[in-house]
Amino acid sequence: MSRYEVIGDWGTSRLRLFRVEQGHVTARRDGPGIGAVGKEAEAAFAAVIAPWLEEGAPREIRLCGMAGARDGWVEAPYADCPADAAAWRAAAVRFEWRGTPLSIMAGLACVGPDGVPDVMRGEETQIFGAMAREPALRQGRHLIVLPGTHNKWSVVEDGRVVSFRTMPTGELFALLRDRSTLGPKVDRADPAQEAAGFAEGLERAGEGRLLASLFAARAMRLRGGRSEDWATGYLSGLIIGCEIAEIRSTLGEADDILLIGDAQLSVRYAQALGRQGLASQVLDGDACSLAGLGLV
Amino acid sequence: MSRYEVIGDWGTSRLRLFRVEQGHVTARRDGPGIGAVGKEAEAAFAAVIAPWLEEGAPREIRLCGMAGARDGWVEAPYADCPADAAAWRAAAVRFEWRGTPLSIMAGLACVGPDGVPDVMRGEETQIFGAMAREPALRQGRHLIVLPGTHNKWSVVEDGRVVSFRTMPTGELFALLRDRSTLGPKVDRADPAQEAAGFAEGLERAGEGRLLASLFAARAMRLRGGRSEDWATGYLSGLIIGCEIAEIRSTLGEADDILLIGDAQLSVRYAQALGRQGLASQVLDGDACSLAGLGLV
Repeated sequence: MSRYEVIGDWGTSRLRLFRVEQGHVTARRDGPGIGAVGKEAEAAFAAVIAPWLEEGAPREIRLCGMAGARDGWVEAPYADCPADAAAWRAAAVRFEWRGTPLSIMAGLACVGPDGVPDVMRGEETQIFGAMAREPALRQGRHLIVLPGTHNKWSVVEDGRVVSFRTMPTGELFALLRDRSTLGPKVDRADPAQEAAGFAEGLERAGEGRLLASLFAARAMRLRGGRSEDWATGYLSGLIIGCEIAEIRSTLGEADDILLIGDAQLSVRYAQALGRQGLASQVLDGDACSLAGLGLV
Repeated sequence: MSRYEVIGDWGTSRLRLFRVEQGHVTARRDGPGIGAVGKEAEAAFAAVIAPWLEEGAPREIRLCGMAGARDGWVEAPYADCPADAAAWRAAAVRFEWRGTPLSIMAGLACVGPDGVPDVMRGEETQIFGAMAREPALRQGRHLIVLPGTHNKWSVVEDGRVVSFRTMPTGELFALLRDRSTLGPKVDRADPAQEAAGFAEGLERAGEGRLLASLFAARAMRLRGGRSEDWATGYLSGLIIGCEIAEIRSTLGEADDILLIGDAQLSVRYAQALGRQGLASQVLDGDACSLAGLGLV
């Protein structure tokens, strides 16, 4: 009998596989994202897991993320919000792969307070993982945000995900910085200038006018003596500040705010939240993923 | 003595030259934008005007737009707002070119009610041209908008441009439509679907949450049965609707609203303004340009 299990997060841009033995991660392998492999998902998965299979099949495999998308490996449903961990786990699609039970976890779907539908695939694993690790999150009302390309802001209430909203803040920022006439022409990576711009962007965001404040990234260079790096920071602060103000009016207030994900980005969000008088706490993303997949 | 003058609008992406005889445009020639010619501006200008010079030098040449930018042909200053037509004309830079008096018109600079600086180069010519053509615009308070890549919203009051704000709405829309994960993958150019999306985007904009409403362009396809063309229209309506709401809170209300520029875009703006209870009137862009340069 094999002594290990495999869990993995297979997103659009990468596959991360973990080998778990007696509740501990003992190895990790990375592979291509679902976006790159398309219809060849099974072959891509087999190639990444191959070295481990040589020692015998794992007891079980659990995957979350875009592996379950329509264009993924095998489509898994969306569990409808409000959803607790049991309902979400029950919605997984299960099949046998080379003699091993394999689960692809469900996504989550919701309709926001303003009637707008939304979906996620992958992030829900970290959210349920955070609740598994932090008992305090299973009572009361908490706002959990996973900052990234498409930020997922979720309200969890008494152990259930009741609503969430995707904010494509990271994607918008990258477009403005790299592909618009507002971003820097030359990035000198001057952290002090960028930090000053970020603070000024946060302050400007307090007026709640994103579009009317964008062009200042350029005009302040022409007429206000600001630098290119200042503009990068300004755009980031402006967008994140506006995002936080909007999410509060969309999803409502909560007892506290938890950040899961990239450390550097989490620091930015903590600063931006603080600027609006909101305390936040950062959780470890990998630990939440593993806890969400339920084997560690 | 030559019987003609030359006026022109030399923007970032194109040069438009008009030959004027006794107050009438009798010929037109197009050439490359300042962005494409850089330091070779004079040679590029000479090449475009050459066929006319064969008949003798013009009495005068007047250019507006990016020809006067720092990276243009000869730098012209910005006239500070509030500015009337006389102050703006006086700020032009003048020199003799191959024996002909040549003026490059000034841009405009302002500091908005919220302390944000802003600049324009080229659009001010159409604004002053509109005031020259429409005596009613020289009294009272009017909002003039030139929709395009970077929309210029200007408040004119008793014949002066008192303030303006650049809204990079067109650039943002193009980035989202063509380069983001929110835009259509395949554009089938279905006008009915796009119009439905535009109307829904305008309605959603009424809630004033741009970032929180962006992802619906994708989620409504996944979960709301909407099409790719619907998404294109939705993004346009959402952004334009938010733009109008923001500009009203930035620049304040006015007696009326005038649109100058692209006919198709003007129709969209008129619809979006109407959705917010605002009437608007469309003026001919070329006629305003020519009147602003003061020879027709």
